[in-house]
Amino acid sequence: MTDTTSNKMWGGRFAAGPDAIMEAINASISFDKRMAAQDIAGSRAHAAMLAATGIISDNDAQAIREGLLTILSEIEEGRFEFSAALEDIHMNVEARLKEVIGEPAGRLHTGRSRNDQVATDFKLWTRDQLDAFDAGLVALIHALLGQAEAGADWVMPGFTHLQTAQPVTWGHHMMAYVEMFGRDLSRVRDARARMNESPLGAAALAGTSFPIDREMTAQALGFDRPAANSLDAVSDRDFALEFLSCASICAMHLSRFAEELVIWSSAQFRFVALSDRFSTGSSIMPQKKNPDAAELIRAKVGRIFGANTALMMVMKGLPLAYSKDMQEDKEQVFDAADNLMLALAAMEGMVRDMTAQRDNLSAAAGSGFSTATDLADWLVRVLGLPFRDAHHVTGTLVGIAEKAGCDLPDLTLAQMQAVHPGITQGVFDVLGVENSVNSRMSYGGTAPAQVRDQIDRWKEKLA
Amino acid sequence: MTDTTSNKMWGGRFAAGPDAIMEAINASISFDKRMAAQDIAGSRAHAAMLAATGIISDNDAQAIREGLLTILSEIEEGRFEFSAALEDIHMNVEARLKEVIGEPAGRLHTGRSRNDQVATDFKLWTRDQLDAFDAGLVALIHALLGQAEAGADWVMPGFTHLQTAQPVTWGHHMMAYVEMFGRDLSRVRDARARMNESPLGAAALAGTSFPIDREMTAQALGFDRPAANSLDAVSDRDFALEFLSCASICAMHLSRFAEELVIWSSAQFRFVALSDRFSTGSSIMPQKKNPDAAELIRAKVGRIFGANTALMMVMKGLPLAYSKDMQEDKEQVFDAADNLMLALAAMEGMVRDMTAQRDNLSAAAGSGFSTATDLADWLVRVLGLPFRDAHHVTGTLVGIAEKAGCDLPDLTLAQMQAVHPGITQGVFDVLGVENSVNSRMSYGGTAPAQVRDQIDRWKEKLA
Amino acid sequence: MTDTTSNKMWGGRFAAGPDAIMEAINASISFDKRMAAQDIAGSRAHAAMLAATGIISDNDAQAIREGLLTILSEIEEGRFEFSAALEDIHMNVEARLKEVIGEPAGRLHTGRSRNDQVATDFKLWTRDQLDAFDAGLVALIHALLGQAEAGADWVMPGFTHLQTAQPVTWGHHMMAYVEMFGRDLSRVRDARARMNESPLGAAALAGTSFPIDREMTAQALGFDRPAANSLDAVSDRDFALEFLSCASICAMHLSRFAEELVIWSSAQFRFVALSDRFSTGSSIMPQKKNPDAAELIRAKVGRIFGANTALMMVMKGLPLAYSKDMQEDKEQVFDAADNLMLALAAMEGMVRDMTAQRDNLSAAAGSGFSTATDLADWLVRVLGLPFRDAHHVTGTLVGIAEKAGCDLPDLTLAQMQAVHPGITQGVFDVLGVENSVNSRMSYGGTAPAQVRDQIDRWKEKLA
Amino acid sequence: MTDTTSNKMWGGRFAAGPDAIMEAINASISFDKRMAAQDIAGSRAHAAMLAATGIISDNDAQAIREGLLTILSEIEEGRFEFSAALEDIHMNVEARLKEVIGEPAGRLHTGRSRNDQVATDFKLWTRDQLDAFDAGLVALIHALLGQAEAGADWVMPGFTHLQTAQPVTWGHHMMAYVEMFGRDLSRVRDARARMNESPLGAAALAGTSFPIDREMTAQALGFDRPAANSLDAVSDRDFALEFLSCASICAMHLSRFAEELVIWSSAQFRFVALSDRFSTGSSIMPQKKNPDAAELIRAKVGRIFGANTALMMVMKGLPLAYSKDMQEDKEQVFDAADNLMLALAAMEGMVRDMTAQRDNLSAAAGSGFSTATDLADWLVRVLGLPFRDAHHVTGTLVGIAEKAGCDLPDLTLAQMQAVHPGITQGVFDVLGVENSVNSRMSYGGTAPAQVRDQIDRWKEKLA
Repeated sequence: MTDTTSNKMWGGRFAAGPDAIMEAINASISFDKRMAAQDIAGSRAHAAMLAATGIISDNDAQAIREGLLTILSEIEEGRFEFSAALEDIHMNVEARLKEVIGEPAGRLHTGRSRNDQVATDFKLWTRDQLDAFDAGLVALIHALLGQAEAGADWVMPGFTHLQTAQPVTWGHHMMAYVEMFGRDLSRVRDARARMNESPLGAAALAGTSFPIDREMTAQALGFDRPAANSLDAVSDRDFALEFLSCASICAMHLSRFAEELVIWSSAQFRFVALSDRFSTGSSIMPQKKNPDAAELIRAKVGRIFGANTALMMVMKGLPLAYSKDMQEDKEQVFDAADNLMLALAAMEGMVRDMTAQRDNLSAAAGSGFSTATDLADWLVRVLGLPFRDAHHVTGTLVGIAEKAGCDLPDLTLAQMQAVHPGITQGVFDVLGVENSVNSRMSYGGTAPAQVRDQIDRWKEKLA
Repeated sequence: MTDTTSNKMWGGRFAAGPDAIMEAINASISFDKRMAAQDIAGSRAHAAMLAATGIISDNDAQAIREGLLTILSEIEEGRFEFSAALEDIHMNVEARLKEVIGEPAGRLHTGRSRNDQVATDFKLWTRDQLDAFDAGLVALIHALLGQAEAGADWVMPGFTHLQTAQPVTWGHHMMAYVEMFGRDLSRVRDARARMNESPLGAAALAGTSFPIDREMTAQALGFDRPAANSLDAVSDRDFALEFLSCASICAMHLSRFAEELVIWSSAQFRFVALSDRFSTGSSIMPQKKNPDAAELIRAKVGRIFGANTALMMVMKGLPLAYSKDMQEDKEQVFDAADNLMLALAAMEGMVRDMTAQRDNLSAAAGSGFSTATDLADWLVRVLGLPFRDAHHVTGTLVGIAEKAGCDLPDLTLAQMQAVHPGITQGVFDVLGVENSVNSRMSYGGTAPAQVRDQIDRWKEKLA
Repeated sequence: MTDTTSNKMWGGRFAAGPDAIMEAINASISFDKRMAAQDIAGSRAHAAMLAATGIISDNDAQAIREGLLTILSEIEEGRFEFSAALEDIHMNVEARLKEVIGEPAGRLHTGRSRNDQVATDFKLWTRDQLDAFDAGLVALIHALLGQAEAGADWVMPGFTHLQTAQPVTWGHHMMAYVEMFGRDLSRVRDARARMNESPLGAAALAGTSFPIDREMTAQALGFDRPAANSLDAVSDRDFALEFLSCASICAMHLSRFAEELVIWSSAQFRFVALSDRFSTGSSIMPQKKNPDAAELIRAKVGRIFGANTALMMVMKGLPLAYSKDMQEDKEQVFDAADNLMLALAAMEGMVRDMTAQRDNLSAAAGSGFSTATDLADWLVRVLGLPFRDAHHVTGTLVGIAEKAGCDLPDLTLAQMQAVHPGITQGVFDVLGVENSVNSRMSYGGTAPAQVRDQIDRWKEKLA
Repeated sequence: MTDTTSNKMWGGRFAAGPDAIMEAINASISFDKRMAAQDIAGSRAHAAMLAATGIISDNDAQAIREGLLTILSEIEEGRFEFSAALEDIHMNVEARLKEVIGEPAGRLHTGRSRNDQVATDFKLWTRDQLDAFDAGLVALIHALLGQAEAGADWVMPGFTHLQTAQPVTWGHHMMAYVEMFGRDLSRVRDARARMNESPLGAAALAGTSFPIDREMTAQALGFDRPAANSLDAVSDRDFALEFLSCASICAMHLSRFAEELVIWSSAQFRFVALSDRFSTGSSIMPQKKNPDAAELIRAKVGRIFGANTALMMVMKGLPLAYSKDMQEDKEQVFDAADNLMLALAAMEGMVRDMTAQRDNLSAAAGSGFSTATDLADWLVRVLGLPFRDAHHVTGTLVGIAEKAGCDLPDLTLAQMQAVHPGITQGVFDVLGVENSVNSRMSYGGTAPAQVRDQIDRWKEKLA
């Protein structure tokens, strides 16, 4: 039966022949209508400038600007009929403007072309996403700061190779992600500053002979300045690629955190309990809680970096200036932006909702002689032993404890002195996970006091 | 004004809070409804098997199978109301079945789970795409064969480094693409054969204790056999990745051909005239013909390989068996398949419609002393000169022709003999582009006779 | 101090000016010397054919073929001096041949060019890798079959979402990977069959006017036939891309298994003990065992798919026939092949050496009421309850067991009948992990008998 | 014969068994020795700090610092014997230090670990590359400014869709690339500022209990500050990914320019003559000049973005803190950096050497009625015609010129007035390519005066 489906599908898709195929591959209105608000904002700024420079009359500009607002309302209220025959959002709006205000509509396109218009629209849209990205990161960082503040001194295992290495604090672990998302924030802000130049007025590629004022439209649209070279202005998609690069790195950070949440939620770890809102259950295994949201977030890096790959490959080897290939830019950015914002919001929600299983964290932190390095460091620091000797003494003591089925702090001073006579009562100040984490007072270390300093610095930075 | 847009957007998207976020990230019905026909086909086969093995009654199976047909009609006719609360296509269909036929609906899910069900649906969908891919390739190859047959002996320049190297024939160039798309076809058929194993009955991951007959459902759905390991059957997405790999390589071939069509359409080359249907014009520059379709086809490799990247990254490092990350598989394959089929159809249309500019091709083929290698080969073959000497003589003669502003065949025998006395009248048989291409009779070479043999072999293969 | 380093480096690299830069970017001998054996094999076959077809004398062919063997010895013994000025392996060998045998060396290049020569060399090299890939997969599958055979009936948890879902057997889990690597094997063999066509004799791009016998060289080099179109033969890099695609999917499988081994080696899971040979320890934490090899294998998919991305992007939009861009093909395939073979060998070693921690696996398999679905299935199968009711009864019983702090098989028949009076003693036959796995007798299911059938089928297939 | 090769190879590679495999996959010294200078600089700064904070004695620090200089000399002079058994650069240097200075060597590793050490080394190495990247971009921009200055008023065709759209100036086209590489420069500087935080002193992951001074080592190594979170400091590879992202976008720009150079060098375009130094010829076709360097530059984006893909995939889903997977980071960055620097240098050389073919550029600029839009704009601007009417009049005039076989400026005023009576002599001021480009005086437009302003702004910026 599937064969039938298949054949009908193949035939059906392009039954109408070459014209249907060309419309299907060529028209962009199905996706670029998402830039309607940006398109209208750009046109309104352009019309105001045309009047201010005397290129068109004030009356015409007024009619155009009001007509465009009418159309915006129609679109926002779902009353606008988009037409694939009109190809793209620019033509759809322009054609409707003609219907709404008549002849003056024809003057709007003076001193610009579709090439600078689409670049302007897409830049405005992407800039909005950078702002949303910024807001999403700030919200997530606040959620992490909340967890870090609550658990600045909760001990947990610090892993390397997914093996317990040394005890750390819950707050310290949360703050590691704050640093990562903080770098994302910094990247987003750099990207926004760099891309904030207006292509409007670059026209088809060569600029125009009309005495337009590109500074004025740039300012009206919130750009810092007009783009400096009209050929580049219509050929450039760096802003989209830089958005995708930033989004990819951030999504990679999210994937690392999500991986931890999946592992921490397993029955074997039980380090964290996710809320019911961000997990799903089973009707017959009530204790089962699938970390669906974490898994989906973990996957998003694929999709977002896939979009990065796609656009990078599209742009590879394209001669100047505009080529139609570049129409493939928008869907990639749209999809990546949608999924990134969703992943950030879901992660923020999960972080706010999740509960550290403090007993399990603490028990795991202490297992595996995780403070052996503290003992070795004490031997070096206090007794002045060379590292190699300190490691030998420590290894011997761990061996004794292992045989005795106890942990290092459970050994007696006498047992220790039997291995190295210089060991004093002071050694017990560094054994045990609480002592261990408290001792790591180097800048950026896991000691609760250090963690609280880190939290304060971030609160100040975001204030 | 864009700031306002942005904030509203961010706030607006997830205004309803965590539950809205979770539904947005978790539900798949918005895209997996495309697999409705496959889902229903799978369920109907499953129900028939449950009855045949006595697990459910014939009456129940009958009710289920008819109810499912009813639902299929509703979906095909656009009367079905999909619900995001019901998450996916399986739950939507199942819930509706309950409404349509009542209690027996509950028996359908015996001996299977959503994990094997989604794997089955997605495999059936992908298999349909492989069939469409196959059909699209065959149609494109036929179009190329048509061009090759018409122009088996039309001369054109053969390029290396985009520099004229040696004359070739139009038919030979077209047949190079037939070889490429022919390899794609071979890959598609291998992929289809490899993936054609049924996951149905793997259940959640471990198989089932119901005495199901997986052979029977496999056969009913056109599979060659049931998948051999239930854990693998629900964890495997190789078939999707192999589809994307095949699609990527094919799209790369399309990008190469599209690049040639763009270059060949330039005013500087004018090797080919694309039809109006697959290009766009300018109202004021009537001679301008933008190769839009070729550019868009050239870009598709980005999108399709981007999807490959996305899914590869999603699958990286996933433990067995099913993880929710795998829900990200479908949109990538859907988008890649849609765009590949469109690109194949558009390329087929362009190839059918395009006109070789024979005069320009021929003139370009003869420029640049493109038959210098023929002369050198003649000196080796006929006079027995060592290669190095033959190259020296040829270089000297090219220099003389260049100074004289003529081509090699325009030199007199005397002029030639002045450089090397052994040269005879026979040399003129290999000079000139027609002689050159006719001489390249090695298997697979550019001689028209060879080209016609290639065409015949392909016609036979596709018959 | 790093600034100094940096400046010196930048200046130093290209101090010699443009010529040094051009040599650095243009010469390929630093890497293509790896194809020396293939280059010489190709040339020897070509020389034999030139003599057989009378294009060169038997004496010349004899001298060439012996001279090439001499050069091969020089290279294998490290006595050959490669020269960057001679650019590539072909020129290095050809120049040396001239020194070794004198004038006849000049006749070797008759009827071929560097374009078909490099394509032939690279295909032969890649074919060798496909054979090594095949051998590596077979060895790994044998290692997995060994583990599966030993533990066909060892119970362990089957996971979805890294949450215990149902008990499975160790053998079943191992056999899931056999299926994956088995598909890789099938892909490798298809790829080898498809690519096994000889480019030799395609010459620069158009074929040649010398009466060469391409069948003869194809056969001598183990190819199934000559490539059918000379333009395609020198432009085609599908074989490299298909190798990279197959390698990428296989590396993804390896990453999944490696991820499991990392998680299974954690102190929290302890499902498996890796051998000391494939892990590293700590001098002071003797119980710590870092799964270094598993982590490195997990990472290789990045590198290999990165190579796939690289070559796909290089080939995007390249016009026919040979472009110098294609020189970027080899290093990607070399690096991917080296790392894939290493990863396969390391995984095979780890699998052979690793020890399942049967007690931990068994304990984990039974926790979390993992046989609740077995109970529900029993209620459906034996008592004829509709699914929904069966789930309700099961959930209630799980709740009772949870409160009592016991597992399902620990409940009394009376306790069960209090929830549903129809339950009989027979229910205990499906509770408990051993019963559960034994009951899943559907084809491909986790029952030990099914697993042993799968093992037998694979042994037969590989025999 | 290749089969034999293959089997020997497979067997040969890992003949020594598991230990050889583990050393092959685990050891990094074969590539991380490139960070020797950075490793020694980091250790010297660390030793100085340990003495300043009283953790080790001044004498020990002095011995360590001098011993490290000795080792650096040995390495720079090629006298150092690297050992794979010692795994990596850190252990190689440390072991040698022990030999050179004896017991104090053991004190160097106080208060740090390999995890922060490798992060520090790799950051220093990458920072050097960012500086080289910066220098390479500045040099390339200067080369472009030179071309732009020489040809600020040379006319050439401006293309869209590789179809002549409007005349532009050579200087304008060059300045478009200055903008692109200028954005790359801005990205590189942002990336350098962001990554310039010192991981040294983060120790294994938790910080240390030794009273180290991370500010001091940060300053000594030219870092702006110590990294704020020790867990993040050893887990972070953002700096490598951001380098690869910046490099990828820059390589994409290079690929676009390279594509233009390849097309411009074709016999059909002849827009530019590349120097012999950056192209290769043919012994028998003396007019042939293959743009090898341009093609290789065009390809580099594949390799560099491939490295980006590889590392992104490696990092996907890695839990904190250090995992061995991260050892795969360096080779990707090394290879991408080497190839990027080479491509930048080659492009700079090509740009400096290349010669614009002014006559061909000019002739092409004027063909195809490329100033039709100028005519239409004049009709709008001077006669006040609505756009649609202006386009109609222009199209009619182009049709007349086409039939007459002449260009627009060759029409008489009378011919024009026959189409629209309002046309005056003034129209000829905008027809013709010189007039056209001079008229496009909008900011960033192609008018020579605008181009010269852009050049001046860039000179000032780089001064």
